[in-house]
Amino acid sequence: MNHPAPPAAVRRPFPAELLAELTASFGERVSTSEAVRSHHGRDESPFDPQLPDAVVFAHSTDDVQAIVKLCARYGVPIIPYGNGSSLEGHLLAVQGGVSIDLSEMNRVLSINAEDLTVTVEPGISRKALNEALRDTGLFFPIDPGADASIGGMSATRASGTNAVRYGTMRENVLGLTAVLADGRIIKTGSRARKSSAGYDLTRLFVGSEGTLGVITEITVRLYPQPEAVSAAICTFHSMAEAVRAVIETIQIGVPVARVEFIDSLAVRAINRHSNLTLREAPTLFFEFHGTPAGVEEQAGLVQEIAAQNGGEGFEWATRPEDRSRLWNARHSAYFAMLQLKPGCRAVTTDVCVPISRLAECVIETEQDLKASPLPCPIVGHVGDGNFHVAMLIDPDKPEELAEAERLNRRIVERALAMDGTCTGEHGVGLHKMGFLVAEHGADTVDTMRAIKHALDPQNLMNPGKIFSWGA
Amino acid sequence: MNHPAPPAAVRRPFPAELLAELTASFGERVSTSEAVRSHHGRDESPFDPQLPDAVVFAHSTDDVQAIVKLCARYGVPIIPYGNGSSLEGHLLAVQGGVSIDLSEMNRVLSINAEDLTVTVEPGISRKALNEALRDTGLFFPIDPGADASIGGMSATRASGTNAVRYGTMRENVLGLTAVLADGRIIKTGSRARKSSAGYDLTRLFVGSEGTLGVITEITVRLYPQPEAVSAAICTFHSMAEAVRAVIETIQIGVPVARVEFIDSLAVRAINRHSNLTLREAPTLFFEFHGTPAGVEEQAGLVQEIAAQNGGEGFEWATRPEDRSRLWNARHSAYFAMLQLKPGCRAVTTDVCVPISRLAECVIETEQDLKASPLPCPIVGHVGDGNFHVAMLIDPDKPEELAEAERLNRRIVERALAMDGTCTGEHGVGLHKMGFLVAEHGADTVDTMRAIKHALDPQNLMNPGKIFSWGA
Repeated sequence: MNHPAPPAAVRRPFPAELLAELTASFGERVSTSEAVRSHHGRDESPFDPQLPDAVVFAHSTDDVQAIVKLCARYGVPIIPYGNGSSLEGHLLAVQGGVSIDLSEMNRVLSINAEDLTVTVEPGISRKALNEALRDTGLFFPIDPGADASIGGMSATRASGTNAVRYGTMRENVLGLTAVLADGRIIKTGSRARKSSAGYDLTRLFVGSEGTLGVITEITVRLYPQPEAVSAAICTFHSMAEAVRAVIETIQIGVPVARVEFIDSLAVRAINRHSNLTLREAPTLFFEFHGTPAGVEEQAGLVQEIAAQNGGEGFEWATRPEDRSRLWNARHSAYFAMLQLKPGCRAVTTDVCVPISRLAECVIETEQDLKASPLPCPIVGHVGDGNFHVAMLIDPDKPEELAEAERLNRRIVERALAMDGTCTGEHGVGLHKMGFLVAEHGADTVDTMRAIKHALDPQNLMNPGKIFSWGA
Repeated sequence: MNHPAPPAAVRRPFPAELLAELTASFGERVSTSEAVRSHHGRDESPFDPQLPDAVVFAHSTDDVQAIVKLCARYGVPIIPYGNGSSLEGHLLAVQGGVSIDLSEMNRVLSINAEDLTVTVEPGISRKALNEALRDTGLFFPIDPGADASIGGMSATRASGTNAVRYGTMRENVLGLTAVLADGRIIKTGSRARKSSAGYDLTRLFVGSEGTLGVITEITVRLYPQPEAVSAAICTFHSMAEAVRAVIETIQIGVPVARVEFIDSLAVRAINRHSNLTLREAPTLFFEFHGTPAGVEEQAGLVQEIAAQNGGEGFEWATRPEDRSRLWNARHSAYFAMLQLKPGCRAVTTDVCVPISRLAECVIETEQDLKASPLPCPIVGHVGDGNFHVAMLIDPDKPEELAEAERLNRRIVERALAMDGTCTGEHGVGLHKMGFLVAEHGADTVDTMRAIKHALDPQNLMNPGKIFSWGA
C-alpha cells in the first residue's frame, strides 16, 4: 500500500463522445493507454496514483483552448501536467478527466535581453531555459530541486536555493497567458517592471495550482550573470548553531545568493549519491554573487559570523566545476535521501517560519525526529526560514505512514503557531488541504473559494485541490 | 470649471436610518458637515470633488467592521480614506456613501526587527513609520512623492524612488487584514518570507483600490539601513542621453538604490521651490546603498556609464544633510511643479514601459510636449521604466484640460504599444478606467470584474473605480 489519497471524490463520467471529439481534433496526441495515463496520474508524492481518463498532448494555446472548451461542454475535469515533479499530489486525477500534457509546449518565445525578461511556453524546464539563455549573459535563478517546468513552477509558486536573494516565482513572473475554464484566453501583466493597472491577476494565477485555468505562456524576469561567484561550505556542532549563523547573516543584510542547511544524515545521503566526502555534520552551503570585490566582502562577513557561531572548516569552492558539483549534489538531495532506505518513499514537510523563530522551530523539530523510528534527513532554504524534513517510509507499512503524518502534523502546527506557513514552496495539492483553514482562517479560505467559484463555476480546473469545493 | 468626473453614476440613497445608526455607534466620530465631507470627496487629482454623504473616523478593525455591516444592510457605498494623496480620483464618492477615515488608525502594532517586518494600521504615513523605526536600524523604503498612508499605498500598489532596488508595495506587503463587503474579517499571508499556501489574496488586495474591502492592518518588509549611502547628480545634454545611461546601468546589474530623471523644467521648479541652484538641464539623481566599498564600486561604475553617455558635472552629495536636501527636493517635485503656473492643477501621466523602449518612449513624448502650449515638466523613476508628465492646466480653461487629455491619451497609447502599462504606480482610479481594456483585453478585465462581483455582490466597496460594474 502506498499513501492513500484523501477521501476519494467521485470520479465524473467520461463520455465516449468527448473522447471521439478529442481524437477527431488531436489524433495520436490523445492517449488512453494505461501506461500514459498511469504516468500522468501520479507525481513525486507518496500518494497512490489516480489516473486521468485520457491524456492530450497540447502544442499551442489554441490547442489548450480547444481541449478546455470540449471538456467544459461535457463537464469533464482538466489537469495541467508539466514535468510531473510536484510533491503534494497536485497531478492526481481525483475526479477523473483529461490530463493536458504541456511538456511539448517548451519553446522560448522571445528573449528580451535588454529588458531582462523572457517569454516561454509552460513546458520548458528550468534547466532548458537556462541552457537557452547561455549566450545572453543572463540567467533565471529559481531552482526547485527537480528540473521542474516553468509552468508548474508558476502554478505552485515555487522557489529553491536562490530565493533568499532573487525571490520566488511570486516576485519573478511578470505576466502570463491562461486559458480559463470557459475557454477564454486572458493575458495578465505586461513586460513593464511594475504596474498598478487593476487587480493583480498574475499573482492570483501564480500559486493557483491549475485550479483557475491552464497557464500557456509565462514572462519571467532574468538577471545578469554575476561577474563573480564564490561558494563555500562550513560545518557546525549543531543545527541550532548553523541556523543562528544564517539568522545573523540575513539580519545584517548580507545579500547572500544562497544559503542552504543540510543535516548530518542528509550529508551522508549526498556523499553516497554524489560520491563526495563531505564531513557528516550539520552543514551550510553558501553562494555569493556580485563583483569580485563585493563577493569577497560578503564572504568575509559571513565567514566571521559563521566562526562566531561555532562554524568550522570553512572551505571555498572557487572553481566553477567544484561549485557545480556542490550544487548538483544539493539539488539531488531529494533522490539521494530516498536511497538511504531502499524501496522507501518520502513524506516531505515544507514549513516556513519568520526567521526569528527558525532556530526554535528546527530545534523542537529535531527533538521530534530523534524520538521517531523513521529516518528523517533535513535540508533547508534557511535564509527564507524554510526547511524540509524527508520522512522515509516503507510504502508497505501503514504504521510508518501514520508516524510520518503524525510528525508532519506536529511540524505544521508548530510552524503555524509561530506565524509561519504549512508550505513555503511546494504548494497545497492534496496533502496540505487539511491545514489551510488552520493557517488562514475559514473566512479567508472561503474568500479563495468564492474566487474559484466565480472563475470556474463547473469546478473543472484541477478539482479537489487546495481546498474543497464546498465549505 | 475643474476636471469633470467621468459620466456620473447615480448617487445612491443615503437613508436617515443609517445615519442615525452610525451616530448611535460612533457619536462625534460621524460627520456630515460640508467641510469634512468636502475634504473627503477629493484627492490630488484635478477632478471636481464628489462628496460622500457622511464621514466616519474609525479607530479599529472592529469599528470598520461595524460601519461596513451597517452600510451593507442599507446598500450604501464605502470609500476608505487614508491621507487623501491619491492622484487619479480614487477617493471621490461618485455614488455617494460613507467615507471611512482611517487616519486615526495610525499605530505601529508590532515591530519584528529580527524578522525585518512591521505590522501597522493603515493610517500611518510612510514618514511616520520610518520615524517609528528610527532606533531599530531598519527602514521601510517605499516612498511615493506624498507622505501617503501605508494603507493607501497598499491599495494603489504604490512605489516611488527606491523601487528599482527594493520593489513596490507588491513585493513588500507580506500580509494584511481586510474587512470584506459583508463585514467578514480576513487575514491574508503570514509573516513567513514566502508561502505557497493557496491563492495570493495579499497581492489581490494590494492594488485593489478599496474595491474589494477595507484594509485595516498591513505587515510589510523592512530592510537594514545601509551601512553606507552616497548620492550624486549628473546632467546631460538631452533626456535621451540620460535615459540611455540609466538603461545601461540597469542592464549590467548595478544594484543602484535610486535613479531619478528630472527634466530642465522640473529642475527649474525644484530650484525655485526648494531654494537650490541645480543646473537647469536634463538631470539624473542617483543613490547607492551598501557597504562603503560596495557603494564606492557602484558609484564608480555608474559615473563611467554616465560619462560615456555625455553626462557632465557628476557631483557627490556625501553629507547626510546634502542628501536629505536633494531627496526632499525630489519628493516635493509635484508641488514645486504646480507652482510653475499659479492657480494651475496638474494632469499627470504615469506610464511604465520595458526599459528597452524607454528612450524611444520619452523622446517621442518630449516631441509631443514641445508641440503643446501647456507647460509639461517630466520626472521619472527611470530605473523602472516609469515616468510622469505633469501637464499644468488652468482649471478655468476647458481647452487646456482637453489638450492635457489629448496628450495623456497619446502617451498611454504609445506605452501600451510598447508592451507597457498605463499606470506604473498611481493606480487606475477614475482617470485611467478608459485604458484598462486596451491594456489587458476585455476578457482579462472581465476576469477582474468576476472577482469583484464574487467578493462584493452589492458593489459597495469604492464603486465606480478601476472598471465599470457591468461589461
